[in-house]
This record gives sequence, C-alpha cells and structure tokens, in this order.
Amino acid sequence: MNTQKVKIVSTGIYIPPKVQTSAELSRLIGRSEDWIISRTGVVNRHIAEEPMDAMGAKAAHVALQNGPPPDCIINASTTPLQLIPDSSVFIQKELGLDGIPSWSVQATCLSFVIALNSAAALVQTGVYKRVLIVSSETGTPWRDLNEPESAALFGDGAAAVVIEPAPEGEQSRLCDWVMTTWPKGADSTEFRGAGSRRPPFISDVTRPEDYLFHMKGPKIFRFAIPRAKEALEVLFKRNNLEIKDIDRLILHQASGKAIEQYVHYGFEREKVEKNLDEYGNCISASIPMTLALADRKGRLKRGDNLLIGGTGAGLSVAFALLKW
Amino acid sequence: MNTQKVKIVSTGIYIPPKVQTSAELSRLIGRSEDWIISRTGVVNRHIAEEPMDAMGAKAAHVALQNGPPPDCIINASTTPLQLIPDSSVFIQKELGLDGIPSWSVQATCLSFVIALNSAAALVQTGVYKRVLIVSSETGTPWRDLNEPESAALFGDGAAAVVIEPAPEGEQSRLCDWVMTTWPKGADSTEFRGAGSRRPPFISDVTRPEDYLFHMKGPKIFRFAIPRAKEALEVLFKRNNLEIKDIDRLILHQASGKAIEQYVHYGFEREKVEKNLDEYGNCISASIPMTLALADRKGRLKRGDNLLIGGTGAGLSVAFALLKW
Repeated sequence: MNTQKVKIVSTGIYIPPKVQTSAELSRLIGRSEDWIISRTGVVNRHIAEEPMDAMGAKAAHVALQNGPPPDCIINASTTPLQLIPDSSVFIQKELGLDGIPSWSVQATCLSFVIALNSAAALVQTGVYKRVLIVSSETGTPWRDLNEPESAALFGDGAAAVVIEPAPEGEQSRLCDWVMTTWPKGADSTEFRGAGSRRPPFISDVTRPEDYLFHMKGPKIFRFAIPRAKEALEVLFKRNNLEIKDIDRLILHQASGKAIEQYVHYGFEREKVEKNLDEYGNCISASIPMTLALADRKGRLKRGDNLLIGGTGAGLSVAFALLKW
Repeated sequence: MNTQKVKIVSTGIYIPPKVQTSAELSRLIGRSEDWIISRTGVVNRHIAEEPMDAMGAKAAHVALQNGPPPDCIINASTTPLQLIPDSSVFIQKELGLDGIPSWSVQATCLSFVIALNSAAALVQTGVYKRVLIVSSETGTPWRDLNEPESAALFGDGAAAVVIEPAPEGEQSRLCDWVMTTWPKGADSTEFRGAGSRRPPFISDVTRPEDYLFHMKGPKIFRFAIPRAKEALEVLFKRNNLEIKDIDRLILHQASGKAIEQYVHYGFEREKVEKNLDEYGNCISASIPMTLALADRKGRLKRGDNLLIGGTGAGLSVAFALLKW
C-alpha cells in the first residue's frame, strides 16, 4: 500500500455526435442487429468526424472548467494523430496552451489508469500540482469489417480528468494499485501496423489488414479471467477490503461479457458502471468516459471507494483503488 | 525542488554491429562525405538488422545484470514494433519475463528522460522498487533519402537503465526536473504517418513520404536555443547551482551543432559527453546510450552532478538534474 494523497478534482467527456446503430452496422459486417447486440452488448456506437486531438481538447476543456491551466498534460490514448510528435503536443495546441510539459503514455485500453497512477506519484512527490490526463480515441476507421465481433465492439470518444494534491482534511486518495502484463497474450489483441513490423510502402509483407484492429475475443476472455481475479485478490488482501467495501466499479468497457464477469466475482450489479450499450468499447477512453459519466450522473460521492481498471492488450490487467 | 531518493543502479547498451559510413551514405543521398560530416557531425551510424524489441531486450539484459527481475518495465522508445500491443510487451517477451507490469512512454527524443522522471516518482512513493527503462530505436529505414541533412543524422541503437531506491546513507538522487513543450514547434520534426492523420490503404491523401522522418534542422535550432537556455536557468536558480557545479552532461545527441551549443552556454567541453560521431542521433535511445557509454568508460563517479536531457520533437525541452 503506497497511498498517494491526490484528488481527481474534475472530469470531462466529449462524445462525437454521429451515431452508428447496430442496425446500420449490420449491413456492413453481414451480421444481424440481434447478433451484434447479443454478442457484444453494443447497441449504438459514436463515430468521430474530427481528429483525436480536437476531441481530446474538448473533453479537456470541460475537465479544466474555469480553473487555472494544468502544469502537466499526459495524453493516454492508443490511436495517435501521427507518430511524431506524440499526440499530447497536438492536444496542447488545440487547448491553446504553451510551455506546459506534455507527453504520451500508451498501453492500449489501460493507458488512462496507468497515466493516472504515474500522475498520482508525480503529484504526491510535488513535481506537479495540476495534471491533465486526456484519452481520446478515433479507432472506428480501423475496424476490420471482415471480423464482425471486434468490428461491432468499437466506438469513438474522449474523456479527461484533472488531478491535484488532496487538500488537507479531505480523504481523497489513490489508495493502491496493481498491474500485471502477460506477453503470452500479445497476439490476442493486435494492430500489427504503424511500426517497424509492418511499415507501409517500404515492405512487401505489409497488407491493408495490418492497419486494422484484430481481436480474439474468446481467447482473451479465457486468458484474462484468472489473471484479473488474482490481481483483485492481491489488491483486496493488501488493503484489508472485501468486495462489499467497493462502492463503484469504473471498468474498461471491453465487452458485455467482460463487464458481466465482475458480477460473477461477487460485485453488486448496481455498482458496476456500464455505458457499453450506448458507446461501445472506446479503447483507452472507455475508463475515463465511464468515470466522467458516473460523475455527471451524481453517482460518485466524495469518500466512495472506487475500483478503476480492467484488462487490455498485452495482455495486461490493472486496477487502481481510489477514494473519490 | 522535489528530490527523489532514487539511484540508477546499472546501465546497459546494445549497438547493432552493422555500420554505415558517411562515405557509403553519401552515394544514397547525393552529398559528399565531407558535407555529411561537417553538416551533421556524424561519421558513422549503426543500422539495425533485428527488431527494436530484440535490441531493447539485449540492452535490458546487460542492465539487469545478474540481479532480480524488475518489478516494472517502461518502454521509452519512438519507433514501435506495432501499434497494439505497445512495444513494452514485446521487450518483456524477449526478456522471458511474465506478469511484470509494462507500458510505454512516448515523447520522441525525450521519452527516456520523461520515463526516468516518472519512474523516480513511482520508486520514491514506494509503488515500485526496481524499474527497468528501455529505449530502443530502429529509425534508419524511415530516413528520407531526399532530405539529406536529416537522413545523414539518424542511427539505430538501444540502451536501458535500472532504477531503485537510493540505499540509506548514499547520496544518489534525482534532484530536480524541468520540462516545457511548445506546440508552435510541432511541424519542425515530424513523422506524419502511423496515425489517423495519414493512414495507409484507407486514405487518398497518404503518401510514401508520410512514413519517413522530416526535420527542419535550422528552424528547430533557432526555436530551441532560447527555450533550452530558459529551462536551464530555472533549474540552476531553483537548485542554487552554477554551470561549473555540473560534473557531466548527458545530452540528447541531436546534432553536432546542438551539442556544441552547451559549450556556448558555458559548460566545459570536457564535461559534455559526445558519441554522435560514431552512432548518430538515435532518437530516444541517444540519452541512455550516452549515459551507458559514460558509465562504461568510468566517466561517472557516485556523487557527481549529472545534467540529463535536451530538446525533442514537440518542440519540447527537458532536463533532469541527477546526483549519480
């Protein structure tokens, strides 16, 4: 237990207005609306019509409210604008800010919670006092329409949070953190392009499908369940907590089945925040979107115990235990 | 000043054996050997014939020595193997490690020093106790041979460090840190592909040159000088240090001219570590390679004041003040 005395002071979300219903998508992927909804749990997903930096900046703008500018910006997104510079710079540019340090953290769906944990340590040690974390994803153009299950899953969206030191006398904390990575699961979730393995133009082996998302849903599920359970057991034991002590679960919206698994673990269904049906799996943006939506709906009370995390490509498992 | 009581306990480096001389390169880019050397300061550069994860793991293996496995792995590289999973997973796989949390930090040439600062905060707060940071770059296939000055600059290489808490009674510290990012300089150093702005296959606007490095050297130089100077002044004033108090400069090997600038700032030439002539600009790997080479040559004494950093795409400026 290495408690960081930090507070998420505000959240922001931006959802692109264009909706793609499962009925509309069904014509593109050759599966019925019922098949899509029952398989993935996704009824609608939103489609970005603007770049990830613009979406990220809109979410950040909400999170920053009328407060002072941040003293650090961390982009925690998977789908970049371009390789160099990293996308944090373009989000900063969109925000009209200058001179503020910015960089990117990347671990696919878990990017946000990793950035949260790193930012908490930087705030706890006094390096920064107002850190903006932004996750923004425009993955829908990279869906493989020939892989109906993963194509049906993804949506676009952005969210942001601002982290500050917890004021004296307040109980907000990042109480603990657990993460494990299992490279044996690396081939379950892949986007093989955008690097030296499958460069376009200068390689004979690179194909269009290398620049699309690929997921082996059932394999991930079997691989992830015992590892997520083990990570949760470590976290709960170390903090002397029981499942009933968690007030709210802010999970990566991986799939309907993945979220349902937490009910099987013993968490009350009512505590498990869910928005997959309306937004789909928004990669790194899903976790902060879920947090921001719960915040907006008044479902987070200061002092609540939040479990924030899930599983992601790698395969990795990560959970932060946060006192809101 | 937010001193982190951490120690870089060991360093590792891996340089791919294949050398490309400036004489050989001169035939590819239509400039003479003399032009290349006088313009960039690079005599030789090494060319990777294996992927970035293999090179990174070799450097990491040296850094880990015969010690225990790390409890956290941070990949701090620019040229990835593929987009998903992030490259940290593949480096971990090459190391034969399982279950250790790993993720990536990306800010082009400054990725390593940003990861160092974040890792220091995670060690200082007790979250991790033995963090492996790896930078590995295979950028040479992405040189634009029609842009001689930048094409002449780049080389491939990898380096790694291990960070632990400083043992009681030892003076090793990360004493302070300064970073600024200036999005106005974003177009000076670009790789426009590998993201949503220039996707291959699904975009009509994407061209082969979008998947090559582009740099406007003189523009970066003019833009960076006053900003680097300002950052150094902040760091020195805050720590009550003078230029003569720095024992060793571990700089990004951006270009001969960029490194020479630190002599103009007033640092003794003998203190400025330089390996650009033999290895070129290895993007994020340059800083840890410079550290590892100085370590190997016995040029670092425990207790020395090290200035670690430089400028990178963004445009960003970052410096860590480290007591070795």
